[in-house]
Amino acid sequence: MTTPAYEDDNIFAKILRGEIPAVKLYEDDDTLAFMDVMPQAPGHLLVIPKSPSRNLLDADPEVLARTIPVVQKLAKAARKAFDADGVFIAQFNEPAAGQTVFHLHFHVIPRHEGQVLKPHSGGMEDMDVLKANAEKIRAAL
Amino acid sequence: MTTPAYEDDNIFAKILRGEIPAVKLYEDDDTLAFMDVMPQAPGHLLVIPKSPSRNLLDADPEVLARTIPVVQKLAKAARKAFDADGVFIAQFNEPAAGQTVFHLHFHVIPRHEGQVLKPHSGGMEDMDVLKANAEKIRAAL
Repeated sequence: MTTPAYEDDNIFAKILRGEIPAVKLYEDDDTLAFMDVMPQAPGHLLVIPKSPSRNLLDADPEVLARTIPVVQKLAKAARKAFDADGVFIAQFNEPAAGQTVFHLHFHVIPRHEGQVLKPHSGGMEDMDVLKANAEKIRAAL
Repeated sequence: MTTPAYEDDNIFAKILRGEIPAVKLYEDDDTLAFMDVMPQAPGHLLVIPKSPSRNLLDADPEVLARTIPVVQKLAKAARKAFDADGVFIAQFNEPAAGQTVFHLHFHVIPRHEGQVLKPHSGGMEDMDVLKANAEKIRAAL
């Protein structure tokens, strides 16, 4: 298969254009980080490049090179904010791999020993919980 | 928690020093890619920087920036080689997140619709199968 073309009606494109809200954590010229609204664990966040690509497969390698240090920055902050035992980074390409939103994104998920992850794209978290968790992460950046 | 110090007796450090074998796929000045010997799906491979770090949390951001384009290169080759429907990228930091070898590595796993992943660090694959799969990926690079 080849990667289908990017479509700019996906929800992350809408977040980037300010058409729908997000609980933002970090932003620079190239990158945005915000809370996943269906967290697999407390502190689950997403890092996306502003540059459009469907996923990692069709991304500009230079965009990837600018995005991954931001993934690291947020992973370190999330670990600190939640006193996590570890951090899981996941990046899904195409539906067969679990991708549900077709704008490149990296999942950053704090992990604790013995805590089982909730399913991907499970239940919607309460907005007040997301905002409180975001505040912890921003404080650790 | 803080990230423990790097220890150079891990198996990926031994692979980098040539002390133990690996089914290699790609190598440049900074990066090595080779087959995972306990694949979660056919074509499961690993990309590691040559520079020592325990995981993403203590890595040099510039090393990460040089590694991720190689992850992309191998992901595209693995997709092509296995005519995969998708590719899953996973990167585990610390045991609570699933890390079992303490040298930074990215998992690249071809995915097919309806095919369930085997457990991480499950059974050892037959060496002839790994070599045949590696040949397919190298041909697609």
